[in-house]
Amino acid sequence: MPIVRVEMWTGRTHAQKQELARAITEAVCAIAETTPEATIIIFEDVERSNWALAGVLASDEET
Amino acid sequence: MPIVRVEMWTGRTHAQKQELARAITEAVCAIAETTPEATIIIFEDVERSNWALAGVLASDEET
Amino acid sequence: MPIVRVEMWTGRTHAQKQELARAITEAVCAIAETTPEATIIIFEDVERSNWALAGVLASDEET
Amino acid sequence: MPIVRVEMWTGRTHAQKQELARAITEAVCAIAETTPEATIIIFEDVERSNWALAGVLASDEET
Amino acid sequence: MPIVRVEMWTGRTHAQKQELARAITEAVCAIAETTPEATIIIFEDVERSNWALAGVLASDEET
Amino acid sequence: MPIVRVEMWTGRTHAQKQELARAITEAVCAIAETTPEATIIIFEDVERSNWALAGVLASDEET
Repeated sequence: MPIVRVEMWTGRTHAQKQELARAITEAVCAIAETTPEATIIIFEDVERSNWALAGVLASDEET
Repeated sequence: MPIVRVEMWTGRTHAQKQELARAITEAVCAIAETTPEATIIIFEDVERSNWALAGVLASDEET
Repeated sequence: MPIVRVEMWTGRTHAQKQELARAITEAVCAIAETTPEATIIIFEDVERSNWALAGVLASDEET
Repeated sequence: MPIVRVEMWTGRTHAQKQELARAITEAVCAIAETTPEATIIIFEDVERSNWALAGVLASDEET
Repeated sequence: MPIVRVEMWTGRTHAQKQELARAITEAVCAIAETTPEATIIIFEDVERSNWALAGVLASDEET
Repeated sequence: MPIVRVEMWTGRTHAQKQELARAITEAVCAIAETTPEATIIIFEDVERSNWALAGVLASDEET
């Protein structure tokens, strides 16, 4: 059943997502006593222009 | 009030979403005693490269 | 893969959720060409005091 | 801690998101007694073809 | 259409949610050119024992 | 920035969530090149009566 949703800024590579999927699945199965076949990981890429901290969009901080 | 969120892999056509919106709205109204005007359906298309089962990205399984 | 998330106000019965789960799964499988075994439905019960339309909490409208 | 997620149809400008991020952060901090540094705003742009009311996709209503 | 989801730690009062609903709806309507009747706010109360920063649950930091 | 949301059935202990928070944060920081201070983990406990696979609520399968 576990569904793990990972929101990160865009820019992570396919290789990084492969590794993350494997590592998070291993952690969830080892600790939460479930099986890999029941563990879903979903990545959501968020643009810096769609994310704000302290009222400022992250894309505006980079200037 | 019902808000129904449907996450599916990319590739479903506009016609499929039209049918799904109609069918799910009908089911929700018939069973949960609400009105179509209060029922929102949101589709979210997920790339196979952003979705993993058993620690493996779905896009890697297709090779 | 489809994950369907149904947000409704609290108060729906177990029987209504059973029916909704069956009806939505059937619609999704018939229309989106997937299998029941790959179709997950998650219900989220929302309190009227946690939901606002037009700036007014639904729990306040009932008085 | 507050995480505020704003789903709107695509089409809002960067300037509108800047203003929204600032205004929502101010409201949350003033009312919910938190700090700007702990307040995250995430915008999600939804296509009209991915959003239905009363069983009809919004993109189909515009014709 | 805008759906605004506000995740905060449990403990905010009904009065704070009333004010937040009103203030956020006003900001969204003024800035994003929508109407109050189309603006939904949903509050989600998160327990400190269900939220971690830097790998530590917030409920553990309070000791 | 990473926000990781872990949906699991109710029943996991506080100790399991502590371990999960630590392990997932470590994995995310090691692989996605971010810092613990920017990594948020949120747990969501889902009742078996609110989760269906193949059209059947998980709570109904246990009988």
